[in-house]
Amino acid sequence: MSTESPPVCRYPVPTVAELPEDLRQRILEVQEKAGFVPNVFLALARRPAELRAFLAYHDALLLREESGLSKAEKEMVIVATSGLNRCLYCVVAHGAILRVYAKAPRLADQLATNPLKAEVTPRQAAMLAFALKVAGDAQAITEADYEQLARHGWSNEDAWDITSIAALFGLSNRIANAISLMPNEEFYLMGRAPRARGEARPVES
Amino acid sequence: MSTESPPVCRYPVPTVAELPEDLRQRILEVQEKAGFVPNVFLALARRPAELRAFLAYHDALLLREESGLSKAEKEMVIVATSGLNRCLYCVVAHGAILRVYAKAPRLADQLATNPLKAEVTPRQAAMLAFALKVAGDAQAITEADYEQLARHGWSNEDAWDITSIAALFGLSNRIANAISLMPNEEFYLMGRAPRARGEARPVES
Amino acid sequence: MSTESPPVCRYPVPTVAELPEDLRQRILEVQEKAGFVPNVFLALARRPAELRAFLAYHDALLLREESGLSKAEKEMVIVATSGLNRCLYCVVAHGAILRVYAKAPRLADQLATNPLKAEVTPRQAAMLAFALKVAGDAQAITEADYEQLARHGWSNEDAWDITSIAALFGLSNRIANAISLMPNEEFYLMGRAPRARGEARPVES
Amino acid sequence: MSTESPPVCRYPVPTVAELPEDLRQRILEVQEKAGFVPNVFLALARRPAELRAFLAYHDALLLREESGLSKAEKEMVIVATSGLNRCLYCVVAHGAILRVYAKAPRLADQLATNPLKAEVTPRQAAMLAFALKVAGDAQAITEADYEQLARHGWSNEDAWDITSIAALFGLSNRIANAISLMPNEEFYLMGRAPRARGEARPVES
Amino acid sequence: MSTESPPVCRYPVPTVAELPEDLRQRILEVQEKAGFVPNVFLALARRPAELRAFLAYHDALLLREESGLSKAEKEMVIVATSGLNRCLYCVVAHGAILRVYAKAPRLADQLATNPLKAEVTPRQAAMLAFALKVAGDAQAITEADYEQLARHGWSNEDAWDITSIAALFGLSNRIANAISLMPNEEFYLMGRAPRARGEARPVES
Amino acid sequence: MSTESPPVCRYPVPTVAELPEDLRQRILEVQEKAGFVPNVFLALARRPAELRAFLAYHDALLLREESGLSKAEKEMVIVATSGLNRCLYCVVAHGAILRVYAKAPRLADQLATNPLKAEVTPRQAAMLAFALKVAGDAQAITEADYEQLARHGWSNEDAWDITSIAALFGLSNRIANAISLMPNEEFYLMGRAPRARGEARPVES
Repeated sequence: MSTESPPVCRYPVPTVAELPEDLRQRILEVQEKAGFVPNVFLALARRPAELRAFLAYHDALLLREESGLSKAEKEMVIVATSGLNRCLYCVVAHGAILRVYAKAPRLADQLATNPLKAEVTPRQAAMLAFALKVAGDAQAITEADYEQLARHGWSNEDAWDITSIAALFGLSNRIANAISLMPNEEFYLMGRAPRARGEARPVES
Repeated sequence: MSTESPPVCRYPVPTVAELPEDLRQRILEVQEKAGFVPNVFLALARRPAELRAFLAYHDALLLREESGLSKAEKEMVIVATSGLNRCLYCVVAHGAILRVYAKAPRLADQLATNPLKAEVTPRQAAMLAFALKVAGDAQAITEADYEQLARHGWSNEDAWDITSIAALFGLSNRIANAISLMPNEEFYLMGRAPRARGEARPVES
Repeated sequence: MSTESPPVCRYPVPTVAELPEDLRQRILEVQEKAGFVPNVFLALARRPAELRAFLAYHDALLLREESGLSKAEKEMVIVATSGLNRCLYCVVAHGAILRVYAKAPRLADQLATNPLKAEVTPRQAAMLAFALKVAGDAQAITEADYEQLARHGWSNEDAWDITSIAALFGLSNRIANAISLMPNEEFYLMGRAPRARGEARPVES
Repeated sequence: MSTESPPVCRYPVPTVAELPEDLRQRILEVQEKAGFVPNVFLALARRPAELRAFLAYHDALLLREESGLSKAEKEMVIVATSGLNRCLYCVVAHGAILRVYAKAPRLADQLATNPLKAEVTPRQAAMLAFALKVAGDAQAITEADYEQLARHGWSNEDAWDITSIAALFGLSNRIANAISLMPNEEFYLMGRAPRARGEARPVES
Repeated sequence: MSTESPPVCRYPVPTVAELPEDLRQRILEVQEKAGFVPNVFLALARRPAELRAFLAYHDALLLREESGLSKAEKEMVIVATSGLNRCLYCVVAHGAILRVYAKAPRLADQLATNPLKAEVTPRQAAMLAFALKVAGDAQAITEADYEQLARHGWSNEDAWDITSIAALFGLSNRIANAISLMPNEEFYLMGRAPRARGEARPVES
Repeated sequence: MSTESPPVCRYPVPTVAELPEDLRQRILEVQEKAGFVPNVFLALARRPAELRAFLAYHDALLLREESGLSKAEKEMVIVATSGLNRCLYCVVAHGAILRVYAKAPRLADQLATNPLKAEVTPRQAAMLAFALKVAGDAQAITEADYEQLARHGWSNEDAWDITSIAALFGLSNRIANAISLMPNEEFYLMGRAPRARGEARPVES
């Protein structure tokens, strides 16, 4: 129960300085916004082409402006499915981002532990039920699941967003679990205090 | 995503004032120590005889001084098994108590999400593996599981403690999930800040 | 396949004579009624405070007179959930008690093996479905489960009874499985003969 | 909780008188030995060709004299796997046969509820472990499972017997569950009394 | 990744010449029709009485002319349930037979991989859902499952056929997996080409 | 059981002509090599940025030349994990590619149905076991799993490749299942005939 942080993951990771310019630039921007470099960047940066592809997919889904899901709702999908997949990194890191986006200090712990107990709207609960089925039992999805989404006002494009976000973080949950990726210490506390001054802004992944 | 606290649980709960004297006394002591009344007291107090029995079992296990498990280790068992059982109340409330006891602000989130990623000793990992088997697959326990414990220096009496704590919180996990018992807001943040001044002391359940 | 009884459990157990007076008294009463001392008393009596707490919880739930569940229905909940948890001691011991209470020699084997095949009323089947969800998947309980109970005339207080009984025997199932608690030989046959003369009366746990 | 017996199964069943001669003969022999006609005969006799095939497979495996498994051990395989498959008919009917063959009144309840708690030899425990893997996870069987059998003195032909018996009763478990085949009342009590005089002899299925 | 065929199964198998006359005759007929001897015949022929019983059950169900299921529909049940049970032999061999019977070169791969994606009618989908529940969770079947079948025009006798076919191939799936029965090379390609000249005719099992 | 191909997926898909130039170019190259456009391109092309990211991740892993896995071994990972995830599109499409790469017409059906029965080397079996754990239970991976890989000569970088390929196809399995992506008819037959003339070459995804 040491208070020193554990290593980033079971693989050695590069320093920011030795990364290709585009990734170095991206990471420095994140660091400036957040105050630290999220460990997922360092771990995936071992393979620059893979980090670039992951970030491209991430941005395509999470920065997509025409989405029917708010930024907080997208993070709700990530935290709930990462809880199902028992991925420590994603639960803690995206839990932090969700707390900041949603200004809801309890929500991430609720979604990660038991989404049925989370303080969400019925419409958000339908979104989460679909996302959890994509994450845990996609083989059993039928048109009835889409109808349930539609009944709560989610469009087919929203369903695509939910599906793809759950699937992309299913990918990062699996990699993070396999490589024992550990969350940065900063994430654990971020967004929990009701009105923290000078709080770091949320960061990507 | 309101910031008002949700109700204690799906059942109406008594006020402290209307409780039998012994329970009122116990609850007021907890309140004085912690600064608030943990919701589990109010929920179970609907049936005073049941609350008394639960507290008696709780005290017999958690306050037992001759145990080979430290107070923090007992809470580790509770948090890990409550995570397996996806019990929001116990994860959040006992997560708080664990953070305070262990002075380890990251440990509860690790144990609740994926005990294999928790920053614990190999001896504690063996304790957790046994506890998780009691919680999730007790029917399959054999002498080989006890031998694994013994290999890490845990005695037969320690095994009894681990078993009974995992079983007792399996009981409260089931009740809490069934009645939708919600954690007090205070628990979410407790013990997270590295050196909080005037931090509330840990409370029972 | 010896015909000698196996040991009580994997732990040494005390004799009745060496127990604290209150427990000795309680056990002697049971012995007088049943003709023998159920093994669970001896096993838990290794830790008197824990046995007292268990009996207090047991009595609070099973002797509660204002319950909407009959004594036989409470035992039905115990036998069905103990079957799900594959707990030999509780299936055999409470199966015996159920046979005597319900004067139904086939019912316990049915409930322990497959509750869907048991000769029960639709109202009792709804009670069992709720109990089995508490035992096996409490995290997924929602208001729809309570509505299903209500549709069969079960009140919210009845739901609490069902929940707490399933949860308490989830605790004893886990302990009994972990410590390999074996049923007394007498339980296997009790209540099976259609009209046994001088049949022992049912006993607690 | 009536004391009248429930119907044989959810399908109408023929009377013995209207069956083809060979099946009528076989059933009358069983009835003479056991004192009653086991319900499985009546249910499968709806389709004489299927009953004939089932009995042929049954006899080929259970009456095979050169087998390394004793008659009691074959019934142990049936009861344990039927317990896993939660088949009421087979647990109760073959439980009765096992009690009579093994002269072990506790054994069937133990095997049906939790084979790990059954009073068997280590060699029989290895046989049961293999049988339960055939019943529940045959896709995962590897040569290591056969080596484990061999280590306890079971031959390759014994392994074939165990496999085929577990597979055949997996078939009857599925049919019995689907058609709600109910055990004859006589089976529940058979073989339980330590020294019953004039006890009916065990019957096939 | 050799192109030589692997052995029939983990047990030595007899040659056709050394088999009892009735089985030899049956196998030679199959060989004439199909152009080869399916491995299941050789494997089960190690125990002639068992092969006879298996073939009798097989014929009683699959050659039953009054069935409400077409020959292709019976094979659909076999392929889908064998896919669930992950039985290589039955998926490949009965997949071949299904392709030929149904003149549907894609159907077997669909059913074996994910029956919800198969190009079948809603009525066939209902048949498959029932069959998959028999194969995977027969203990949970209730009258509601039969009502769902009836809603799609399946009779009680059809339900019996579906149940028994799923149960019989549950038996052969378990045996085939346990003994590592390998499909004949010919089965992999059979019925795939849109209009193969001189294509072998489908064979039993 | 029509012989017309089903629609690409449950969403409308663009024509190649209307795609952005880079994707149009990529797809035309694939079409020239394979003789048809694999449906996954059309489905994901509804969202060009997502298709680009998917292809970038795909190429980073599958075209990575310094990998310790051969092209065929990478496809083995994809087919086995897609079988576990019951993804029709990936099983059929990557099964085709695997058959061509490995010149092994039986291998894909074996891996998709039951990898334990596949004709692979022990070293490949270890690779598949790790991949299946990433796909199905990544939360439980420990250093012991890496040691098992190392024992068969797989390096840490190979483990990363296996992990990432299993994770990426876990993503496409989930999307394909959710949107009901159907394989092109051509894939079903590709690579099956021992010596097909003018056989199309394997294509990406």
